[in-house]
Amino acid sequence: MTTDPTELFRTVRDRTEELAAPLSAEDQVVQSMTDASPAKWHRAHTTWFFEEFVLSPWAAPYEPVDPRYRYLFNSYYEAVGPRQPRPRRGMVTRPSVAEIAEYRRAVDDRVAALLADNQDPALLATMELGRNHEQQHQELLLMDVKHLLWQNPFRPAYQDGGTPAGAATPKPAGWVEHPGGIVEVGHDGRGFAFDNEGPRHRTFLEPFQLSDRLVTAGEWLDFMADGGYSRPELWLSDGWAHINAEGWDCPDYWDRVDDAWHVFTLSGRQPLDPAAPVVHVSYYEADAYARWAGARLPLEAEWEVVATDQGDPAAQFGLHPRAVAEEPTAGAAHQLFGEVWQWTASPYTPFPGFRTAPGAVGEYNGKFMVDQQVLRGSASITSDGHARRTYRNFFPSRSRWAFSGVRLARDV
Amino acid sequence: MTTDPTELFRTVRDRTEELAAPLSAEDQVVQSMTDASPAKWHRAHTTWFFEEFVLSPWAAPYEPVDPRYRYLFNSYYEAVGPRQPRPRRGMVTRPSVAEIAEYRRAVDDRVAALLADNQDPALLATMELGRNHEQQHQELLLMDVKHLLWQNPFRPAYQDGGTPAGAATPKPAGWVEHPGGIVEVGHDGRGFAFDNEGPRHRTFLEPFQLSDRLVTAGEWLDFMADGGYSRPELWLSDGWAHINAEGWDCPDYWDRVDDAWHVFTLSGRQPLDPAAPVVHVSYYEADAYARWAGARLPLEAEWEVVATDQGDPAAQFGLHPRAVAEEPTAGAAHQLFGEVWQWTASPYTPFPGFRTAPGAVGEYNGKFMVDQQVLRGSASITSDGHARRTYRNFFPSRSRWAFSGVRLARDV
Amino acid sequence: MTTDPTELFRTVRDRTEELAAPLSAEDQVVQSMTDASPAKWHRAHTTWFFEEFVLSPWAAPYEPVDPRYRYLFNSYYEAVGPRQPRPRRGMVTRPSVAEIAEYRRAVDDRVAALLADNQDPALLATMELGRNHEQQHQELLLMDVKHLLWQNPFRPAYQDGGTPAGAATPKPAGWVEHPGGIVEVGHDGRGFAFDNEGPRHRTFLEPFQLSDRLVTAGEWLDFMADGGYSRPELWLSDGWAHINAEGWDCPDYWDRVDDAWHVFTLSGRQPLDPAAPVVHVSYYEADAYARWAGARLPLEAEWEVVATDQGDPAAQFGLHPRAVAEEPTAGAAHQLFGEVWQWTASPYTPFPGFRTAPGAVGEYNGKFMVDQQVLRGSASITSDGHARRTYRNFFPSRSRWAFSGVRLARDV
Amino acid sequence: MTTDPTELFRTVRDRTEELAAPLSAEDQVVQSMTDASPAKWHRAHTTWFFEEFVLSPWAAPYEPVDPRYRYLFNSYYEAVGPRQPRPRRGMVTRPSVAEIAEYRRAVDDRVAALLADNQDPALLATMELGRNHEQQHQELLLMDVKHLLWQNPFRPAYQDGGTPAGAATPKPAGWVEHPGGIVEVGHDGRGFAFDNEGPRHRTFLEPFQLSDRLVTAGEWLDFMADGGYSRPELWLSDGWAHINAEGWDCPDYWDRVDDAWHVFTLSGRQPLDPAAPVVHVSYYEADAYARWAGARLPLEAEWEVVATDQGDPAAQFGLHPRAVAEEPTAGAAHQLFGEVWQWTASPYTPFPGFRTAPGAVGEYNGKFMVDQQVLRGSASITSDGHARRTYRNFFPSRSRWAFSGVRLARDV
Repeated sequence: MTTDPTELFRTVRDRTEELAAPLSAEDQVVQSMTDASPAKWHRAHTTWFFEEFVLSPWAAPYEPVDPRYRYLFNSYYEAVGPRQPRPRRGMVTRPSVAEIAEYRRAVDDRVAALLADNQDPALLATMELGRNHEQQHQELLLMDVKHLLWQNPFRPAYQDGGTPAGAATPKPAGWVEHPGGIVEVGHDGRGFAFDNEGPRHRTFLEPFQLSDRLVTAGEWLDFMADGGYSRPELWLSDGWAHINAEGWDCPDYWDRVDDAWHVFTLSGRQPLDPAAPVVHVSYYEADAYARWAGARLPLEAEWEVVATDQGDPAAQFGLHPRAVAEEPTAGAAHQLFGEVWQWTASPYTPFPGFRTAPGAVGEYNGKFMVDQQVLRGSASITSDGHARRTYRNFFPSRSRWAFSGVRLARDV
Repeated sequence: MTTDPTELFRTVRDRTEELAAPLSAEDQVVQSMTDASPAKWHRAHTTWFFEEFVLSPWAAPYEPVDPRYRYLFNSYYEAVGPRQPRPRRGMVTRPSVAEIAEYRRAVDDRVAALLADNQDPALLATMELGRNHEQQHQELLLMDVKHLLWQNPFRPAYQDGGTPAGAATPKPAGWVEHPGGIVEVGHDGRGFAFDNEGPRHRTFLEPFQLSDRLVTAGEWLDFMADGGYSRPELWLSDGWAHINAEGWDCPDYWDRVDDAWHVFTLSGRQPLDPAAPVVHVSYYEADAYARWAGARLPLEAEWEVVATDQGDPAAQFGLHPRAVAEEPTAGAAHQLFGEVWQWTASPYTPFPGFRTAPGAVGEYNGKFMVDQQVLRGSASITSDGHARRTYRNFFPSRSRWAFSGVRLARDV
Repeated sequence: MTTDPTELFRTVRDRTEELAAPLSAEDQVVQSMTDASPAKWHRAHTTWFFEEFVLSPWAAPYEPVDPRYRYLFNSYYEAVGPRQPRPRRGMVTRPSVAEIAEYRRAVDDRVAALLADNQDPALLATMELGRNHEQQHQELLLMDVKHLLWQNPFRPAYQDGGTPAGAATPKPAGWVEHPGGIVEVGHDGRGFAFDNEGPRHRTFLEPFQLSDRLVTAGEWLDFMADGGYSRPELWLSDGWAHINAEGWDCPDYWDRVDDAWHVFTLSGRQPLDPAAPVVHVSYYEADAYARWAGARLPLEAEWEVVATDQGDPAAQFGLHPRAVAEEPTAGAAHQLFGEVWQWTASPYTPFPGFRTAPGAVGEYNGKFMVDQQVLRGSASITSDGHARRTYRNFFPSRSRWAFSGVRLARDV
Repeated sequence: MTTDPTELFRTVRDRTEELAAPLSAEDQVVQSMTDASPAKWHRAHTTWFFEEFVLSPWAAPYEPVDPRYRYLFNSYYEAVGPRQPRPRRGMVTRPSVAEIAEYRRAVDDRVAALLADNQDPALLATMELGRNHEQQHQELLLMDVKHLLWQNPFRPAYQDGGTPAGAATPKPAGWVEHPGGIVEVGHDGRGFAFDNEGPRHRTFLEPFQLSDRLVTAGEWLDFMADGGYSRPELWLSDGWAHINAEGWDCPDYWDRVDDAWHVFTLSGRQPLDPAAPVVHVSYYEADAYARWAGARLPLEAEWEVVATDQGDPAAQFGLHPRAVAEEPTAGAAHQLFGEVWQWTASPYTPFPGFRTAPGAVGEYNGKFMVDQQVLRGSASITSDGHARRTYRNFFPSRSRWAFSGVRLARDV
């Protein structure tokens, strides 16, 4: 793998364009809900990020490609100034998709020119952040596209292909055991990580067991058949209120067609594969399922120490068909990465000693540290090379448009 | 002017495509508010209307161009079946704009083929309704496009050109007098009219005066300067609550830039022309203005009898620059048509003896006859040939995205 | 009947206290919805009306009983100044019910003292307005109490007694015929009327028929049995949306208990009497019923001219048991008064030549003249002597906590 | 202090009645917001708790005082059955306050009779839970009464008296230092505790400092003067959105009168005492303040280990005037109890090994463990004997009607 910053930059940038390629201009402009953003916006915002945090300080005096874009494509950086309100990102029909493509090319060229002249470590560090930021948006783009296409009553597909028939029944889940005690978790500073992954620190764990695989769609059907969505004793109070207000009685993206369950995927509607990991459940649902199963959700530290014991996250990411019904190696945790994000019982809080960076970029993660839950692992749509054992994804408890699933844990 | 039904049909259909031509695919898919619809939807819905009400009964057995369109592009006809919910019309990124253009061509050809064989008067009557229906949507399309582009903080224009500087001050308004008594109003059945324009019937009027011109933007500035938006005694109770909840203190589409009032038009932002008719005011505002001016809004019958006395509505419609500061002929009402719709004091109710047509098309107008106010006249964006002295436009009291303005009346 | 202003005043004031007497302090303070007001508030507001419009101008220099009451008990008079927001009237636990009783006595005494000295016709006219205003609130108090007690899952009664068993089946409805033409309607200025009842004026009517009795609960059951609440073709578009959003499938205050319909009354829950007039239906429902019945709702002028032909409204008002299954006199309209208010097809608009009075009291009626429908007649809970042939009651189309029912009309 | 269960029971029950005594029936029935409950409801619900969890199982076969109360006064116990919806508790004007007093007496007598016969440890444990439950509601009752009276524009007082003039300036805050490491926290099972306080368990802490006193109102004024409420960089993203949506720019219950800050207390409006602890701030505000002060909020374990080092919480609770400007003992943390609850940086999650009790009473705490923050300590209105070093109070981040204040912490 290359370490040339320009080449790394180009690779990430090209990947975004590749992901957007199957989408029409219409697909790219509509905002399907407040939490989601149009694909065009993702393409522009990731570009603005390089303009704002790389070109503006490092290529000074910097003349922006279009001064209006600073307003239109800032996401949430208060220090940068006012911005298009998030719920109104879908109103921006102009600039067009073609103009955004042009904007991307212009910024790419300027960044490449800058890098040709300057390899200052601080610059390169910001470049690395920008690439990782863009990879996050690649996953968001796919989440948001899936949500948008799901709004269409005829369930159009983003791409061809689809799940190969996963006929095999998964092995019964086993448990990976850990003795607990003082453990070290969090990023140690070697290689890239987001600010919220550090500092590395000690924490104390009781002995615990972590399931060696993910909860499957078939197991979720058992939960439903056992009245999972109608038994209040299984639910957090907020969760019970929420599923009743929303009328939820199955995971998101599930459709009952001709008496058979189907799931909507980026490849369109598919028959539900009971061996596949369940996906698109909220924290409320994950928590209720765990209670029903006589287990609990793992703490993020529990997840991390087991993942660390398992060696390096392999390169099983991306948009490739998921491996199903794999043969689990005894005593090893499988499906940690590349399948679905795994809800943890840990609220998203700062690690001890956490400090935000100075300047606008310091708004990156810290200001979201309340009323969200951490998810660990990565998903089938996570960009190659973007997963880490210390990665902390986070969403509100009610959220389920991320590729979020469940791994169980229990006390010993 | 031709009377050939195929030619008339082609003319109206082409006009819709002409209106959509300046719009990108992105401009055509986004729904800027619940009351508005995407341009693509207007293009498809008007086409569906011909499929549903012309081809389906008259070209039986009829195979639809795409069976999904019956769901996607039905507006509100309960008798036709379920449909895409109105607030979610903007979620339909597929079919694409190109597919809708193809859909239009296919239906156009089928209709032309049908008409070549069949000139049944009932068929021709439905064709006429379909053309008029499409003309209504041409105006809606322009209203909705204007609203959409206004959401963009950079106020892009739909078209080039714009208001020529209307420096001349309009003459003081005069009054056209009418003695009242029993008058006949409503459509008499000669030529086309919508169902809600009839039956022609008698009504009794007290003597009254109708202003011989529209209220201007300059006069509206006087109202504002005199505290018009902050004096509750001028307002209906609902209006007062509404303007305070919404923070309204000027007509819609007005912007204060560098200490000068500007208006947003289909040609982009323009300096406000005090001689031009005020436009984009709600019924609440029109009513408050009239009270402030020591006058009142006209009844729809008052408006109609004066318009009838003035001879035929001339061909001053369309997207041409508005005539401003014209020299009023003494004793004549000017600007009845082709400028702005004029709020009346009349709620939208059925005329005596009104009956809805049988079948789904009977839902056309009658079911909206509650809690709306009638507007009379026509606007600069009304399609050529679509205005009539008996035309009853209608919107809720709070609505102001139509090209709605004010003509005063008073008791004698 | 006395004409002594002090005695008339005392009679009305005592009636309010009599109506409040069965209510505990708790019953009198709670506001069950935004449209309703606490009984204590009604008692205080009607008292404030005499302070503000009688004592303050006529007993100057006037020291109010408690200066805070001007803020707390003004209803909607913008000209008087700021006031307790309507949706928060139920937050006012202090002053107490006992203090309000004291407030009433103090104002009663001051008014009586004023009247002993002063019989100025303008003063007496305001006194008459104040009495009629209080009578309006007597009816509102009962409507609001009924709504409040209905919130209680155990359906407590306001009073003892109840509907005598109305076993008799009402006669089939007949029609009272009217030839139409120019008619005079509106109050002629003899005796008291609210401002909105005048001026008396001419209007033109087509020939019509008015039903000689009210629609009964039994007939409403037929409408329900025939799918009345599930057939969109019967409904105004807004009505159809509203009943589906609210889940309405029967009139308000109906309960199905042990497979039998019951109605909640001021005397608690009672078995539904099919012979009794249906009550607590919205305009939407009344309109849909009329369409189902092949009829329509009357115009207010139609109702009034028939009522005028029937002679004087007798004294059949108040809280007495309703007469049911009465023997209709051939050719006469029955149940015009004293049963239920009757929705008309007429929106609430000013009569030709209507002018509001100067000063705050001019806000009495005019500012509500938009988006409401007129009801005519009076109800079983209307205060004695408060009904008039020209009386214009009004509520929004969706409203049904008034004692609102249905009388049909049809074209000839 | 007595240990006789009947006497302990009577003492708690009498205290509730004492707290309600200053309230009129009107004060006791109104619900001022969804989060709050009427005082009458608190009195009834705490009684129902003894009926449901003590009398029903232990005095079987048990005939309830009134079978309707099981529906009306169940708070949130799904296992007990359906109940009056929380937002509609204020609609229950009947039973009356007098009937609830009667209900309390009847249940008190039955419980006393039961205890005379039965001293089963399980029964006594439930009695202890019931007493502690009632003490919780005593504090809620005062919070809710304060909130209700605050709705009244004239700011009536619940009680006489008030803050003595606290002229003295508090000493500058000092820091209590702790070396961190593995510590034990949580209730050890000796004496009463709520289920959420255990199990006692180990956790790991970094070295830290805890402020030796609370943040004062005067310090909060400094924060405000320094733009605290208008600098987004100080705020969590949700907090910034919330204070802007709500228009918050000072703590709750603060009023600016004649250019001087006042606070609303249970004794009415008082001039703000800068030496007093700030109270009625949300977690969002507490967090922003800490960031502004260059510090952070403590973890709940940090708070607890310092509190444990300080010896027993003395009897400084209740409604007595708060001690202000006390002389801090060097090296000791002051104001841990009896002043204001102290927001911690710890989300409310189960302690390792936490299990809910079987049966309905198991719903007591566990089902609320998401999206709330823990507060530690106790407040001036906390009932005598109800505070504990392990007590975990909890509220959502936006909440500020509890007596919630701030104590700072920082890393070493």
